[in-house]
Amino acid sequence: MPRYKLVIEYDGTPFAGWQMQAGHATVQSVLTDAIERLSGERVVVAGAGRTDAGVHAIGQVAHIDLTRDWRPDTVRDGLTAHLRPHPVAVVAAERAAAEFDARFSAVKRHYLYRLVNRRADLTLDRDRAWRVPQPLDAAAMHDAAQRLLGRHDFTTFRAAECQAASPVKTLDQLDVERHGTEIRVTASARSFLHHQVRSMVGSLMRVGEGRWSADDLEAALHACDRARCGPMAPAAGLYLSAVSY
Amino acid sequence: MPRYKLVIEYDGTPFAGWQMQAGHATVQSVLTDAIERLSGERVVVAGAGRTDAGVHAIGQVAHIDLTRDWRPDTVRDGLTAHLRPHPVAVVAAERAAAEFDARFSAVKRHYLYRLVNRRADLTLDRDRAWRVPQPLDAAAMHDAAQRLLGRHDFTTFRAAECQAASPVKTLDQLDVERHGTEIRVTASARSFLHHQVRSMVGSLMRVGEGRWSADDLEAALHACDRARCGPMAPAAGLYLSAVSY
Repeated sequence: MPRYKLVIEYDGTPFAGWQMQAGHATVQSVLTDAIERLSGERVVVAGAGRTDAGVHAIGQVAHIDLTRDWRPDTVRDGLTAHLRPHPVAVVAAERAAAEFDARFSAVKRHYLYRLVNRRADLTLDRDRAWRVPQPLDAAAMHDAAQRLLGRHDFTTFRAAECQAASPVKTLDQLDVERHGTEIRVTASARSFLHHQVRSMVGSLMRVGEGRWSADDLEAALHACDRARCGPMAPAAGLYLSAVSY
Repeated sequence: MPRYKLVIEYDGTPFAGWQMQAGHATVQSVLTDAIERLSGERVVVAGAGRTDAGVHAIGQVAHIDLTRDWRPDTVRDGLTAHLRPHPVAVVAAERAAAEFDARFSAVKRHYLYRLVNRRADLTLDRDRAWRVPQPLDAAAMHDAAQRLLGRHDFTTFRAAECQAASPVKTLDQLDVERHGTEIRVTASARSFLHHQVRSMVGSLMRVGEGRWSADDLEAALHACDRARCGPMAPAAGLYLSAVSY
């Protein structure tokens, strides 16, 4: 059976997250339905990252197995057509080796978190970013973020419902950059705990507003205590931007 | 009466444009209502640019006169609060001289047009950009665009319903830049004819896809004939980005 690697973009706003759930519209469920309309087959859509409700993707990756040997461009365009009117698009499709697994072959996941640092409500970026009214020092956020790099027990930044076997992860990159009123946080790691990026971003916000020092952030990490985490940043600002293999 | 200069951002998608129209939600009408809820006064909101239905603004400018001497920050925050849930926000408010007129004092208007050059439907950028599936040569578009700079009769790029006294305008800047799959067109002039930016962008698209040369574009300009214009680019990709005084 030919295997296909799909790169998927979506607006997470109307979805109860990636993963299929009875009675809820999810990205995985609308993709599964679109594949069935295209191919007549009900297949498993295996995604690289299980994004939460309201979280977006620019470069989610999934794999599917189809009986028929479709041209990759037909899969891409056919799925996009059958996904309408949902805000989900297959931006690329290619044949993949039988061993390729979107989830387990991934060597790095890349997330983007967008904050808009201003008093006024969001309009064009509504549901697309986190508005933080108090002035944030992005340089201080970036400096502090470097304390989180490397292999650590990230229990402080882990959701209670996280199902990972271990809270120990290796964080490869956590950059904070200001572009006008927008602050962009980019994070890369082989894998993340549930809510880890949003928890780190909320804690970095504490640094940015001057309530926490870099030492405070590092102490929160080493405490391995969820109660020491800053406020969790909302889902709407988070984007699964790419997955590396 | 104190005069205030307001900088306004909006998502134009749900509006029948800027200008008040009976029976339609417009940006001017929701602003007028918000000012009345804040101040108790029904005033004229004079805008710098009358954006069409579906056109967005990052930096629309308007002026209003209020009887009471409000603090500018109170005007900004109070209007933003009273504008909810409409996707319209007052991002800045300041006191202005009595001679300041948002429309007539403007020395330059700046527009941004966003194209996304890809086959897949838009998701996060739905209603925010124009998707063009055929490959576009942005460098060729930029080169051709320079032929439109300066003082010309822009009749070719003018809507039939345009109410300007003269079709002669001076175009100061028309740049085309590619950023990945996105192509950004930025245009600046003291003023534009109705549909001028969208008409120029649609014609530049013809250059980008290789159907028109720069000479063809220039010939279309000099023909002063609306029938020689390319397809008009859709409203959703256009942003009034700033107004200079």
